[in-house]
Amino acid sequence: MKSDNVVWHQTAVTRPDRNKLHGHESVIIWFTGLSGAGKSTLANALEARLHELRCATIVLDGDNVRHGLCGDLSFSHEDREENIRRIGEMSKLFIDAGVIPLTAFISPFRSDRRRVRELVAKGDFVEIYVRCGLETCEQRDVKGMYKKARRGEIKEFTGISSPYEEPEDAEIIVDTDTHTIEECVDHMMNELVRLNVFHGPLEERIASSL
Amino acid sequence: MKSDNVVWHQTAVTRPDRNKLHGHESVIIWFTGLSGAGKSTLANALEARLHELRCATIVLDGDNVRHGLCGDLSFSHEDREENIRRIGEMSKLFIDAGVIPLTAFISPFRSDRRRVRELVAKGDFVEIYVRCGLETCEQRDVKGMYKKARRGEIKEFTGISSPYEEPEDAEIIVDTDTHTIEECVDHMMNELVRLNVFHGPLEERIASSL
Repeated sequence: MKSDNVVWHQTAVTRPDRNKLHGHESVIIWFTGLSGAGKSTLANALEARLHELRCATIVLDGDNVRHGLCGDLSFSHEDREENIRRIGEMSKLFIDAGVIPLTAFISPFRSDRRRVRELVAKGDFVEIYVRCGLETCEQRDVKGMYKKARRGEIKEFTGISSPYEEPEDAEIIVDTDTHTIEECVDHMMNELVRLNVFHGPLEERIASSL
Repeated sequence: MKSDNVVWHQTAVTRPDRNKLHGHESVIIWFTGLSGAGKSTLANALEARLHELRCATIVLDGDNVRHGLCGDLSFSHEDREENIRRIGEMSKLFIDAGVIPLTAFISPFRSDRRRVRELVAKGDFVEIYVRCGLETCEQRDVKGMYKKARRGEIKEFTGISSPYEEPEDAEIIVDTDTHTIEECVDHMMNELVRLNVFHGPLEERIASSL
């Protein structure tokens, strides 16, 4: 027996609805920089600050993407490009969900980053250049990757045997060899306020805490 | 000048932190059923109800996935499998973000659905079988797809020229040819309460509204 009451209309929750719920705009926060510059650390530290303020966030990095969504991709040039494309598309879905994705990938090529920027509306893509001298990154060498690259055990390692193309139009720049994490996070928060990421009430709380 | 204060420790916001923020667990709500059964409509209607309750949600369907993240995939058997795999991995990232993804894809094969179920922990995957007779779906034929399939213009159309494997272990079943959208949504909300998706305060509000 079919019911005639079944009206198959479409109700839809929109991105502005979700942004209103969370009290902030959703933007892609895209960290780029050399291996060891501090992208992942800063993404996590900024997320912690945002979470304290009850913002909806997620960090996307090699740990949760490379074995999952991009688990079928190699490290060939073509697959690296596809890797960044998927991360971009996924980030776009997160901003549709009202969530702020913070991505931490070297993403050394301007063309790849530009492609992600062009996926979304103006203002939805916030590029953060995590600037740090190669010397410092190599000294940190947390995972011993630079040593391996210098010995030729890793091919096309960014900064050693493959170029890193510095951002020309990054919304935010942080210098991690001359500033502490806290200083970098404060700077990023100030810049996000300037970029109107937070709605009124939240912005006031941030202003009083910085 | 390098700062010695730079302690590159890792702070991390966890999924339980995010769930606490939102007041609910994050689970994948996976709608499956024939074309025209009402998956997308119900996903949107359930999302609207959840959003009213201030839950963090996102609907993933052909509209926002097929042109984006899965824009490189064809409709070959292999690519359909890859399509479902990516949607599964993406959904997993959403539950890590504390968001409830509601996916609306025919996903006709048990093996594909099982693979997604096995991606996440027990209880994180809630399969909803949107049950509706083929006859009714074909009568609705909102997009004229059944007509095309009957004329042989669409190959391997589920229910006509390709099988639909009914779920054997769906957590929730809704019958859309005998129930209204409202009735289906009420039933799904009751079931989500039973599955302990909502934290205490939210659960009380739901109980008083159902």
